[in-house]
Amino acid sequence: MVEKVKLGIIGYGAEGGMYAGFFRSKDARLNENIELVAICDNDPAKKEKVAADFPGLPFFDNYMEMLESGVVNAIVTTVPHYDHCVIGIDALKRGIHLLGEKPAGVYTKDVERLIAAADENPETTFAIFFNQRTNPLYQKVKQLMDDKAIGDLQRVTWIITTWWRPQGYYNQSAWRATWGGEGGGVLVNQAPHQLDLLQWICGKPEKVFAKLQYGVGREIVVENEVNALLDFGNGATGSFITCTNDLVGTDRFEIFGTKGKIIVEDSKKLIVKQLTAPEATLSEKMDMSDVMKIFMGQVDMAQFVTETEEEFTTVFGQQHIDVLNNFADHVVNGAPLLANGRDGINGVTLANAMHLSSWLDKEVDYNVDGDQYLAELNKRIAAEGKFEIRK
Amino acid sequence: MVEKVKLGIIGYGAEGGMYAGFFRSKDARLNENIELVAICDNDPAKKEKVAADFPGLPFFDNYMEMLESGVVNAIVTTVPHYDHCVIGIDALKRGIHLLGEKPAGVYTKDVERLIAAADENPETTFAIFFNQRTNPLYQKVKQLMDDKAIGDLQRVTWIITTWWRPQGYYNQSAWRATWGGEGGGVLVNQAPHQLDLLQWICGKPEKVFAKLQYGVGREIVVENEVNALLDFGNGATGSFITCTNDLVGTDRFEIFGTKGKIIVEDSKKLIVKQLTAPEATLSEKMDMSDVMKIFMGQVDMAQFVTETEEEFTTVFGQQHIDVLNNFADHVVNGAPLLANGRDGINGVTLANAMHLSSWLDKEVDYNVDGDQYLAELNKRIAAEGKFEIRK
Repeated sequence: MVEKVKLGIIGYGAEGGMYAGFFRSKDARLNENIELVAICDNDPAKKEKVAADFPGLPFFDNYMEMLESGVVNAIVTTVPHYDHCVIGIDALKRGIHLLGEKPAGVYTKDVERLIAAADENPETTFAIFFNQRTNPLYQKVKQLMDDKAIGDLQRVTWIITTWWRPQGYYNQSAWRATWGGEGGGVLVNQAPHQLDLLQWICGKPEKVFAKLQYGVGREIVVENEVNALLDFGNGATGSFITCTNDLVGTDRFEIFGTKGKIIVEDSKKLIVKQLTAPEATLSEKMDMSDVMKIFMGQVDMAQFVTETEEEFTTVFGQQHIDVLNNFADHVVNGAPLLANGRDGINGVTLANAMHLSSWLDKEVDYNVDGDQYLAELNKRIAAEGKFEIRK
Repeated sequence: MVEKVKLGIIGYGAEGGMYAGFFRSKDARLNENIELVAICDNDPAKKEKVAADFPGLPFFDNYMEMLESGVVNAIVTTVPHYDHCVIGIDALKRGIHLLGEKPAGVYTKDVERLIAAADENPETTFAIFFNQRTNPLYQKVKQLMDDKAIGDLQRVTWIITTWWRPQGYYNQSAWRATWGGEGGGVLVNQAPHQLDLLQWICGKPEKVFAKLQYGVGREIVVENEVNALLDFGNGATGSFITCTNDLVGTDRFEIFGTKGKIIVEDSKKLIVKQLTAPEATLSEKMDMSDVMKIFMGQVDMAQFVTETEEEFTTVFGQQHIDVLNNFADHVVNGAPLLANGRDGINGVTLANAMHLSSWLDKEVDYNVDGDQYLAELNKRIAAEGKFEIRK
């Protein structure tokens, strides 16, 4: 236990800049267990920017120096995805608490190494920045599913296409939307939140069949459109649909259970339809005359189903601040972590399985063979010819 | 050409009874080109019922006698699905105009025989009872897609789970929800309308991958839950989700095109979002600062997209009467058929492909091998042990 989290931000880009901004503005929502003590970036231009934004704050142009400086006791890794595991492992090995950015990594084999480093350093906190888990709406949905409020999962469908990104977005950095620099497209960059929430709420699938489209309407080589069919076993299935080329995106999440249905619209509106008994039980008791009465509107449906509707609002920054506070509370007081870093492998596994299904053109096991995945990924990195292959 | 359609209804059950009811009540929406002249049913109990409902109307307990009686010049086949082709072929061969019930048949090989009979009798009308094609909402959606109002198809998702049926429904007749008597479950009985509309509006897929569940919460052997992923080629995909065990069913149809989106909710509300240019063109012109402005709500989206919303109402019986009238107008005056009987094979092909994908546990070509499908179907009929295998 430490008295306070002395946080170092590694990577002063858009995301790192946002987190730093909370400290710079002394955001009152930040709790007393965390302070920003250093920033690191390997881009020389960032040194001056940090000096201007945070006069006197220690700046490092090499993350290893920061880790070994004695200045920080925790870091957050707002760096390109391939670096999440590398830097994370180096931090954990040195007893530096890690709040890793999502995705945990690009491929499972790498994330397994990160988890092994965490297991070898059990006293060091390993958390992951799944800020959407702090959204009260999704917390409620998870609670409902954990409580079996709509029975057991039968089917889940998430159309999440509000991740629109134009060509100019991809042109920002040379590593974006490449196999060797980023490791994929929408599955690695935009959708990891939903890939996590889906499994956090509904559990892990067993098999994955996915149709991916690469560079639709964009000068990129990675996937920017995904239509996947998941098999959770026991007859439960799922559809996961995402893309970055829908200017009028949809966000609609529907969970169908043996005792009702949950619908989330635009990550704001929650509709819960709970049956008064399992559907199969209600079915047993009804004959066609009952059904005709229902169809004709002659039956008070309240005897079979209760429906509630609730609107949630989001406040800018709240989710990210909640994650920072929870991380600090865990490190300082042992509060339960909202997102254990080990959970990060689930989203990576699912993304890898979707890639592999597309590459092999067949349904694959959810637990992909890590070596096979990496070999297939490296084929694409080699063909791209811009970056070194990965190990 | 004939002066008037002299219609014989074959099968005086729920559906045949509804059609007969329009004539019995002298429904003013029926046009002058059609009249009901006879009813046929092989159930002896129906003879008295018809005598009571339609005093003096000719009744036949054998459809062949009706076809050869000289009383009718057209029939509608409200009979179990396997009989659609058998009776249809017998009618067409005798020059009796056919308004076939949906589905056109249970398996493509049988429907091909029906189409061959129609081709051999080109003067005889072969129509199919796709009443939902008369729905002004779906006619408008088809027109929008034909006009490329939202560009080319990129993805379509239809969750159509409003087909709830309790156990009592399946207990009504021995042939219901059996392989040998009905030929399948929700794909053969309830969803054929949407299997037709989907292809009428979006075109035919090339490949089909489907997860089917059999007898979920019901004492039946056929599928009552379907989650299918369709591949239309050229990067366009689709999801088709249906079931009969959702008491709080969803009906949501979303089409995502290269130039916008169409959403149909509950077969009532039509939302059309049309981009002012193809999305890829808009993307080319925007950089990240434009995107940030859009995300911050600082951009008037009207420059990129126009959105319209329209509510449609349905009137009981209107769709069915529209089909009867269109059939009669075609037979009498040569008016264009809303649903040529030959179109019926599309829905059967897609249903067969979904079954076959599930049975073989892999993605299959849309154009299934008819002999292979029938062999697989017959395996299930034999295992069921209640009906003769099919040829």
